[in-house]
Amino acid sequence: MRDGSIVSGDESADAHSGHLPLGEIELPESVVIYDTTLRDGSQQEGISLSVDDKLRVAQQLDHLGMSYIEGGWPGANPKDVEFFARAADELHLVNATLTAFGSTRRAHAKAHEDETLRYLIGANTSAVCIVAKSSDLHVTEALRTTLDEAIDMVRDSVRFLCGEGREVLLDAEHFFDGYRRSRDFALRILNAAEGAGATSLVLCDTNGGLLPDEVEQIVADVRTQTSAAIGVHFHNDSGCAVANSLAAVRQGATQVQGCVNGYGERAGNADLSVVIPNLSLKMGIETIGRERIALVTPSARQIAEIINISLDPQKPYVGTAAFAHKAGLHTSAIARLPEAYEHIDPDVVGNGTRVVVSELAGRSTLAMKADELGIDLGPDAVGDVVEALKHLEHGGYHFEVADGSLELLMRAASPQHASDGQFFSVESFQVATEWAASKGAPALAGEPWEALVHPWKVPGALVTRATVAVRINGVRVEGNAEGNGPVNALDAALREAVGPHFPALALVHLTDYRVRVLETAKGTGAVTRVLLDSADENGSWSTIGVSENIIEASWQALVDATMLGLMRASER
Amino acid sequence: MRDGSIVSGDESADAHSGHLPLGEIELPESVVIYDTTLRDGSQQEGISLSVDDKLRVAQQLDHLGMSYIEGGWPGANPKDVEFFARAADELHLVNATLTAFGSTRRAHAKAHEDETLRYLIGANTSAVCIVAKSSDLHVTEALRTTLDEAIDMVRDSVRFLCGEGREVLLDAEHFFDGYRRSRDFALRILNAAEGAGATSLVLCDTNGGLLPDEVEQIVADVRTQTSAAIGVHFHNDSGCAVANSLAAVRQGATQVQGCVNGYGERAGNADLSVVIPNLSLKMGIETIGRERIALVTPSARQIAEIINISLDPQKPYVGTAAFAHKAGLHTSAIARLPEAYEHIDPDVVGNGTRVVVSELAGRSTLAMKADELGIDLGPDAVGDVVEALKHLEHGGYHFEVADGSLELLMRAASPQHASDGQFFSVESFQVATEWAASKGAPALAGEPWEALVHPWKVPGALVTRATVAVRINGVRVEGNAEGNGPVNALDAALREAVGPHFPALALVHLTDYRVRVLETAKGTGAVTRVLLDSADENGSWSTIGVSENIIEASWQALVDATMLGLMRASER
Repeated sequence: MRDGSIVSGDESADAHSGHLPLGEIELPESVVIYDTTLRDGSQQEGISLSVDDKLRVAQQLDHLGMSYIEGGWPGANPKDVEFFARAADELHLVNATLTAFGSTRRAHAKAHEDETLRYLIGANTSAVCIVAKSSDLHVTEALRTTLDEAIDMVRDSVRFLCGEGREVLLDAEHFFDGYRRSRDFALRILNAAEGAGATSLVLCDTNGGLLPDEVEQIVADVRTQTSAAIGVHFHNDSGCAVANSLAAVRQGATQVQGCVNGYGERAGNADLSVVIPNLSLKMGIETIGRERIALVTPSARQIAEIINISLDPQKPYVGTAAFAHKAGLHTSAIARLPEAYEHIDPDVVGNGTRVVVSELAGRSTLAMKADELGIDLGPDAVGDVVEALKHLEHGGYHFEVADGSLELLMRAASPQHASDGQFFSVESFQVATEWAASKGAPALAGEPWEALVHPWKVPGALVTRATVAVRINGVRVEGNAEGNGPVNALDAALREAVGPHFPALALVHLTDYRVRVLETAKGTGAVTRVLLDSADENGSWSTIGVSENIIEASWQALVDATMLGLMRASER
Repeated sequence: MRDGSIVSGDESADAHSGHLPLGEIELPESVVIYDTTLRDGSQQEGISLSVDDKLRVAQQLDHLGMSYIEGGWPGANPKDVEFFARAADELHLVNATLTAFGSTRRAHAKAHEDETLRYLIGANTSAVCIVAKSSDLHVTEALRTTLDEAIDMVRDSVRFLCGEGREVLLDAEHFFDGYRRSRDFALRILNAAEGAGATSLVLCDTNGGLLPDEVEQIVADVRTQTSAAIGVHFHNDSGCAVANSLAAVRQGATQVQGCVNGYGERAGNADLSVVIPNLSLKMGIETIGRERIALVTPSARQIAEIINISLDPQKPYVGTAAFAHKAGLHTSAIARLPEAYEHIDPDVVGNGTRVVVSELAGRSTLAMKADELGIDLGPDAVGDVVEALKHLEHGGYHFEVADGSLELLMRAASPQHASDGQFFSVESFQVATEWAASKGAPALAGEPWEALVHPWKVPGALVTRATVAVRINGVRVEGNAEGNGPVNALDAALREAVGPHFPALALVHLTDYRVRVLETAKGTGAVTRVLLDSADENGSWSTIGVSENIIEASWQALVDATMLGLMRASER
């Protein structure tokens, strides 16, 4: 049986309790999940979130069931001040405690006068998380103060924030490295925070270099030294952030900090989209609530959309390839014995099994895919499709990522469906873009920085126009249109020509457009591959075009997208 | 100190030997690295390798120092038969043993008559790796034979291959799941292989669902049951393939199978680009040879280029973001105390520290970047650049990924460099693409499958033409050109206009072109972001354009690319 399916609360915990490596402690019944996507996660190269984006992400994280959502660092980032102000009015969190992040007071400052702490109070959240250096080296070299002052900074800051009615969590920065250098100082920092009222002591592997065996040793020791809750915060620089989080939990940590989809600086933070199902489904520990585990995949994808970075298809549990099967050998086994190649039932995390078709896939995979699409392919037709795919993929087509074009190809090969796509044939198209700088001197820039923007924003007049001629039932029809780019103009012109004959086209729209330049086999040079995503109210599909010329490649994908939209509409 | 720098053979092993979790076994002195990128890795969705590609990857893997390179499955894939035939002539491996992969004989077949085994022999490699099911369930449900016959299949096959002079490795498929169900049968499979002469017994977590604690328990037990070398083969479905590999080595495994960059079906195989530095730099174990560790990053990137899938920037050790620092707080600390945010010296793995510039980065990061580029920005100019970046990035620009455009912007802001880029100014451009179907009936397709290819290859005439008008030293100059697409035509027309005045332009060429459609802040709709990579004989640079119109965005990036190329040439 797959791991997901054998778990029903206690049963799974029992199944694993015999396997505790140090064998000394029961697994905790529940672990608090603390998400820092909006603070530490947004340090990732390529992530830049508006306040609106952050509010939308926070709402998703709450929906998923996070216990804490770290919203940002007010004071360090002006946007975050605005975020907390708007969060108070606009966010209606059901599950999560919104948390503001900051640092302890500065050296030799008074806590109640310290700017960072005042910003934290100003964020007006019920919980705050403050970072303190717990490595003696960093105190003397980076803070340039004494070890005793560093302890006082923690004690004063925690006491002040508690006095203001806040729940206080302490992020012990560089904890593991500090512990290796001076266990005594690292533990003194924790004890100072606990003594002053901190509820959670969070051990941070700030440079992300730790391996799980050392995590276990150190957490096991810390556990004996405090009665506060222990949290952990791992970065993925040695590729072990998930495993380190699990190792810490096995030794008694009851809070895991990380980010959905492993966002974060460098190699990222611990990936909560993976930590949560591992803890819940494999270790039988309560995290976001059993009933919400099926939200893990949709939430991960929704947040990736808001953050606007494509989710790595290989992401465990939530990626589009996480349960995709390509090898002919595997796909036939999947049907009989799903656990052979699926460690959990993908439905449990809101993902799904997917059959991937490629030239390597073989006839049985293609036949399965045809079944999935409801297309009746006889054995001859399967052979023709295999040959056609081989030929086209050799030239740069890639039907794995273009289910819509694959469906058209299969329909064309099927005796029952061969005439499905005969809505129109294309006679010609043309598309032109013109730009001319505005006459006369450019307007004077007001501020010096505006002059720097100028080279990218030379004032001028831009227009793109397209003409398309098609034949419908033997009659030539032309469409003309302007657009905000060549694909948009071609799409509009095609709609003008075809739309009056097929009103269903009005419901089809393009949702995404991706371009990749590919080196094809040696010697033949580069081609451009265009992928178009389209949707109507009943579903979505992806189509592909490949050509040396991006316009021709876009056109191929556009015609496929239109054909498939009409075909689906005609079958309803 | 960072982890990479404290290691010098024994010293590091000592440093870690106190931390072994089960404390019963010394770490092995060396671990054999077995790469299966060309077989299991190529099962990844989106990977499709030609025989040429495979030969190039194999050469890189050998250069990196892999002990074994699994080249493919001859018989299962016709391309792989060709690969092994050509490998014998064309590959000159210095470090690696090329290995052919296959399965045991079929049930109730004779080994010497079995087709799979004959293909293995035909591959003519000194080592072969065969897969056998080691879970009783899979024997009865998937193979549909008896447990005793499954044992005989292993024994006969290994004996036959050894008799043919091959070194034989056994991949025990579904081993860990099988062990959980029936330890006895799983161990019988291993013992049969060992008894028949297999040198390595490789325990596979085929569905990838295992966590490290269970790996440790099972490998520790298996170690007491065999004297053959133990290998492990993990998939990353629970996000722990790297940690599982390390856990197995801690319990005595001396071979790790995986793929460079973690290629592979679903969530991928164990990422050798991460396993190797972890074993070498953190556990003090010999892997590919100490002197080759610095090849890990360049090899990982070279192979990603051949495979033609962008390497995830977040990849530990080898990603472009693995040692990139964005936060203002961190970047100033990095200068003083690199180990604070870098777990190893990035040079050790052939990667490097990188400062990332974005609107969040703050003035100090920008000033560091300007220093890196040798541009003298005064404090006023830094402020202007910060404002300009904020404004442009709000509109969809992203200077983190466009160092060339950032350099232009910084130069424009610098009092010393403000006039650097005054080579030409643009007056107008236009570009048009026309396509018309060939007159007359299309040529008859020969084979049925050729008719299926037809919709993507409608015969017709395609042409793209561009005109560009620029002003150079007050004189208007025009260029006209055809191209294989609008960007190519615009580039050619711009070169025709500008080239005669600046001969250095002939040395500049475009190397890559990427397009992304971005949703900007709420309400303003989508924009297209174009990134262009360019190079001359002295270096490369990336430039950016953003517009609703892909042609305008491409043009901006093209003008930047040309300006920067001329600027660099003029400074030499």
